[in-house]
Amino acid sequence: MITFEALFKISYGLYIVGSGDKERGNGFISNSVFQVTSEPPKFAVCCNKNNFTSEFIRQSGAFSISVLSKDASPDLFGRFGFRSGKDVDKLDGILVKYGETGVPIVLNDTIAWLECKLMQTVDVGTHLIFIGELLHAEILDDMKEPLTYQHYRKVRKGVAPKNAPTYIDKSKLKIKPTN
Amino acid sequence: MITFEALFKISYGLYIVGSGDKERGNGFISNSVFQVTSEPPKFAVCCNKNNFTSEFIRQSGAFSISVLSKDASPDLFGRFGFRSGKDVDKLDGILVKYGETGVPIVLNDTIAWLECKLMQTVDVGTHLIFIGELLHAEILDDMKEPLTYQHYRKVRKGVAPKNAPTYIDKSKLKIKPTN
Repeated sequence: MITFEALFKISYGLYIVGSGDKERGNGFISNSVFQVTSEPPKFAVCCNKNNFTSEFIRQSGAFSISVLSKDASPDLFGRFGFRSGKDVDKLDGILVKYGETGVPIVLNDTIAWLECKLMQTVDVGTHLIFIGELLHAEILDDMKEPLTYQHYRKVRKGVAPKNAPTYIDKSKLKIKPTN
Repeated sequence: MITFEALFKISYGLYIVGSGDKERGNGFISNSVFQVTSEPPKFAVCCNKNNFTSEFIRQSGAFSISVLSKDASPDLFGRFGFRSGKDVDKLDGILVKYGETGVPIVLNDTIAWLECKLMQTVDVGTHLIFIGELLHAEILDDMKEPLTYQHYRKVRKGVAPKNAPTYIDKSKLKIKPTN
């Protein structure tokens, strides 16, 4: 038996994963970012196949990870989590730096960022796991705490978009969330 | 340039990943547990190739994930994080339940557990990513908070074992940790 509430006990951070180039880039809110090796440092990000950023990562062979601050603006979640780059230029008006690989790195409400070169792509069904070797990592604000998925859910009453690997349909929960 | 301190801004939980069977089982402390798809729910765990539990996961084709409580006993970290199952039976004296697949599930200081059937194994260099479909998930204690890697590091002054994907040699840090 699967008690879906148990899945909320798994801890995650919240990030904007970006890719593309100066001409056209995109990014999405992700909670599935994690280090997979130490020597050399490699990171994995999990991305829905339908996600527009998937295309950019495949084409550019690189991605960025912006670690969001605990007090990150709700506007960022609306823009990067619940809209598609197919319909709107998500980076328009956003503070962006371009990495060594040319990928856009979102700096709004970002306490640290990482830039990775794509090494492997793993098909896990509805999603792809992109595994990249770390090229650069920088801290922008060492005083602020990173935003966690738990804080986003419990305190800020945020929900996961349908494309997220951790999306749970409300019908599967015994206790219905109030948001 | 890589500022290794930036890697500490990535959020993780802390878990005991178990595998094997009633005859012989093993488990290790992991912070690399994450959901990769929602339909069906699949989870990934990252495990050093030298890790004894890797062998059990390959052989049994299944693994368990115990979500540790914020107040989990330091003894658990010593036993499951810094000793090898090659030298000692880590499950001796531990409260264990056996899942549908026969894998041991550690219940000590566990607030929720998951059982997964291995579907894919991905070689990422020093580590393997095991991807499993979720068979069972249960909450044991809904009142206690899950332990996060940040709390373990910052408040409990815990360190990562050398086998961990997030291990950082102190020589790479600008500000040397005091522990």
